[in-house]
Parts: sequence; structure tokens; C-alpha cells
Amino acid sequence: MSARPPILVDLKFNPETVARILKTAFADRGSINAADPESKALDLTGVDYALLWKPDADVFRRAPNLKVLFSGGAGVDSILSIPDLPDLPIVRFVDRSLTTRMSEWVVLQCLMHLRLQRAHDRHQRDRAWGKLVPPEAAEITVGVMGLGILGQDAVAKLRVMGFNVIGWSRSKKHVEGIETFDGRELDTFLSKTDIVVGLLPLTPETSGLYNKAFFARLRQGGALGRPVFINAGRGRSQVEADIAAAIDTGVLGGASLDVFEVEPLPSDSPLWHLENVFITPHDAAISEENALFRHVETQIARFERGEPLQFVVDRKAGY
Amino acid sequence: MSARPPILVDLKFNPETVARILKTAFADRGSINAADPESKALDLTGVDYALLWKPDADVFRRAPNLKVLFSGGAGVDSILSIPDLPDLPIVRFVDRSLTTRMSEWVVLQCLMHLRLQRAHDRHQRDRAWGKLVPPEAAEITVGVMGLGILGQDAVAKLRVMGFNVIGWSRSKKHVEGIETFDGRELDTFLSKTDIVVGLLPLTPETSGLYNKAFFARLRQGGALGRPVFINAGRGRSQVEADIAAAIDTGVLGGASLDVFEVEPLPSDSPLWHLENVFITPHDAAISEENALFRHVETQIARFERGEPLQFVVDRKAGY
Repeated sequence: MSARPPILVDLKFNPETVARILKTAFADRGSINAADPESKALDLTGVDYALLWKPDADVFRRAPNLKVLFSGGAGVDSILSIPDLPDLPIVRFVDRSLTTRMSEWVVLQCLMHLRLQRAHDRHQRDRAWGKLVPPEAAEITVGVMGLGILGQDAVAKLRVMGFNVIGWSRSKKHVEGIETFDGRELDTFLSKTDIVVGLLPLTPETSGLYNKAFFARLRQGGALGRPVFINAGRGRSQVEADIAAAIDTGVLGGASLDVFEVEPLPSDSPLWHLENVFITPHDAAISEENALFRHVETQIARFERGEPLQFVVDRKAGY
Repeated sequence: MSARPPILVDLKFNPETVARILKTAFADRGSINAADPESKALDLTGVDYALLWKPDADVFRRAPNLKVLFSGGAGVDSILSIPDLPDLPIVRFVDRSLTTRMSEWVVLQCLMHLRLQRAHDRHQRDRAWGKLVPPEAAEITVGVMGLGILGQDAVAKLRVMGFNVIGWSRSKKHVEGIETFDGRELDTFLSKTDIVVGLLPLTPETSGLYNKAFFARLRQGGALGRPVFINAGRGRSQVEADIAAAIDTGVLGGASLDVFEVEPLPSDSPLWHLENVFITPHDAAISEENALFRHVETQIARFERGEPLQFVVDRKAGY
């Protein structure tokens, strides 16, 4: 170990992967892996930096002299909800790979709904030759909620695929080539939207946002017939009983869900087998450890050169 | 009917749709719908233009004074194979909507293979929470065969989604931003390809091209493990027994097929239930009648103004 104190790493990811990649990461200062039983006995009072994802509850008591907290993911709700969170800068994980993967998932889900993939699946299972003539992308308006780095990348790629795209964010944002709406204009935004894509952080305002009243405000009778709900933000922004009811009653024509109120999604959840619903297990954009550790190294280097940190969370806004 | 002779339309598409849209199409000269029983008695010797898709065998005997033939689709093999085909210019159907729809299908299929959609489907059916960490698009090389209008649009959109893309065509073409290969370089092209996308016309050279030897030349051990075969060109370019064997033996890791040796695909074909195979019933890019009729009107107007026709088939090349 060098003269620089090691980085405390408490990531509730796949423990084998974290342990394997930590062996070669942070070569200039080393790391302490909280998943390692031997770490429990270590003195953490000299540690400057912590990289956290759902950390142990006693992390701030054991490491009282931290200077910067790094989140293991793009979302920081699991850090902001820790009791007695010290007043330190929190840096979100922003990474080209994370962004690319999220857009792969969003575009894939929109295309599966556009091209009626579940109907094709059913025909294939039944060995039935059933030509389908869905609308083309330009006839569908995708409404993207959340216009940060992830949202803007998804907007650009959906536009290239031919979709009509509009955007919503709490405070008005200008995004190249699309109409945007702000917090007060949610009704107008939803009334124009055939496929809504949720990429919002979990905050008090977004808790339970995607509920019965929300689904009822989406455009009915668009080119897909009924609107589609897609969520890759946070599960606690959605009311799953309302999703199931909206699908059953035809208020929604389909959904794609990567996040859930409780994860893993319980095996008795009705969501698994709803019609025209695609379920993925919160793997739309998994933090890739190598990229995460490189990002943390870059930010620490900036910080130690006296430059401002990037991607610092606005704790009042909650993201 | 105006002084101009009507257009002969013999399209073996959905007959109700053709009849409905013909009511308002070609307003300046009218049309004769070969599907209409009353048309059988009409004198067609004065007809100048015919719009055809799998036409009746006697079409050229009944209409011996045609000046231009229009194909109802992007492919013209069903016209070129007609016995006693007169030596007339044949105009292919090229349309923004047809191109957009084909690219939607191609990108959708590539993303479903990239993101392991069939594994997610299986987990969802089993109510199992199984996170998957596939490679990202940049780790996968998609090799597009056929660099005409459809191929070039697919290339551009696959690149935006992050895939590494290369291209192959019979004669060398230069396409912005990608490495291209020509007829003699097929081996090199295939050895670099993880997902091959076939968009080739049916010609003597492409009949049975996608066979056991072809699949064996694709890259093994890329980021997806095994290569994937995607075909939306023509079914008679593929040897379906070889596809099934290649999937069964692991030479191929998956496939997406929109076209088949015999269509409709017989219900006893083994392709329906092969592992990691997506079947669609030749509906990747259906000719949209309104767009087709507009395209024919545009080309007739050019022809009658003395301007050269566009998208004329090279009968020697076969497309």
C-alpha cells in the first residue's frame, strides 16, 4: 500500500466480480473491500474516499473523515436515504458505456412494442404465418421523461430510428430537435404521448408518480391503439397494482419494466405474465466495474489537482 | 376515365387493401385492377404501364404494348423469372417508408440478439429474476451484405446504436464510416462478422448462398460467443436444413428470419421452434400501397416529361 490512504469500496454488486476487478484497480493507492470479512477489523478513520452502492449502515461511523462519496450507479436514492448522511459531495456514476447500454434497452423496448414482437412470438410458438402491418416509427410519439445524460442519448437514438420524440423534465430543458415540456406541462406532454419512457430519479416528487391517474392521461387511440409504459428509472416511482389494472382494462396496451417496487420482483407478482409486457431484472444498464473504477480514479485526480468534481448530486433536488 | 390509358395493376397483395386504395389512386388516368373479375374481358392493348407483383402468367400477351414495368416491391426476382418477359425497363419500388421499416426490423433483430431477449423471455415465463450482462454493441461486429439503399440505411442506424459495422457487396462500394468488402473478399468479411445481416437480391449467385460452408466461415468466439444469421433478403438465398443443423450443432448461436425457401413457411418446418431464433412472416418491410402508388405516379411523370426513370433494374445483374 502506498502513502495515500486506500479507497473504501462497499458495492452490493456481484461480490466475485467486484473482488476480481479490485485486484488491479486503484493501483496508486489500493482499496478496502467492505465485502471482505477481514475489513471489519480495519481502522477506517484515515480513509478519504468511499465508493458506495447500498453500503453497510455503519459506514459513516467507521469512516468519519471522508471527503467525497462516489455512487456506484447513476441513481443516488440508495445513498441519499442513509440516516445521518454526512454533508459531503456525492458524485454520480456517469459513463459512456452505462449510457449506451441504457439507450440499447430503451430503443429495443420501443421497437419491440412498435413491431408487435409479442404477437410475432405468439405466432411463432403456434407455427402460424401471420403478417402484421404495424405503424411505422414516425407515426408514434415517444415521450421521454428525464432529460439528463441518459434521457438525451435515448432521445437522439429514438429520433434516428424514425420515432417522433418529445421530452419532459422537472425544469425546462432545451434539447436539439424535439419539443420539450416542464413540470407544469405534464398534462399536455402526456396527452401527446403514445409510448412513455421513464428515466427519472427517485425523489419525493417521483415516488408513486406512475399511477392510475398518470396512465389515464396518456394518449388513447394513437397509431398503436393504446399507450405503452416503459420504466428504467426507479421502481418506487411506479404503482404496480395500477400497471396491472391498466393493462387488464386496456388503459395501457403494453409495458416494459426493468425496475420494480421490490427487487428482486417476487415470483408471485402478476407483472410476470401480463399481456404484452416485457420484464427485465434491473439489468438495462448495469454498472460495469472497470468503467466505474476508472470514473472514480478520474474524479479523484481532478479533486486532488484542485479542479471541481463532475456529476455532483444536487442534494436538494435529490439527483 | 381520362384520355390517358389507365394503369394495369396486378398486385398479389391483400386484395381488399389494393381495391380500396386504388379507388383514389392514379386520379389523372385511372387503373385496371387485375383482381377485379370484370377486368378479364377488357382490351389491354392500349395500356402503357403495368404495376406488378407475382402477376398472372398471361399479362404480357394481353398487354403487348407496355412501355414500362413497375415492381410492387424492392425485389424483382418474381418479375425477372416470368417466361417471355418483354425487353422493357423495370422500375423497382424504392421508398422512404419501405427503407425505414426494413431498418426498424434489422436494428430490432440485432438488439434482441445483443441483449439476449430469448433468455429474458425464458426467465420471464419462469418468473425468474436472472440478471444478464451481455456485451455492449461496440463489442459486436455486424456485417451487412447488400449495400444498396436498404443496406446503407441499416448500416447508418446500426452505427448510431453503437455496433461496429462492416459491409459487403458484389462490387466494391464506399460507405461513410465503415470498412467494406467486395465479392472476392467474402472470406475476410465473414471471418470478422459476429452478426451477418443478409439484404441481398435473389440472383443465380445468391441462390443457396447462406449454407453450411457460409456459416462455418463466420467468426467463432466473438463477444456473443457464436455468430448470428439474419436474413431479410430472399428465402431462396438460404439453405434452411443447413440453418437448422448449424443452430443444433452450435455453429450458429441464433438467427432471425423474415424470408423462407417456401412461403408461407410450412407449419412442420423445424425453424419455428429452434433455440434463439426469431421468425417473422415476410413482413419486415411490407410495401405500403399509398407510397407505392405515389412512387409509380412520380416515375410516370418523369418518363412523360422525357426525364430518365429512376431505380431501373439492371437485368444482367438481376437487381
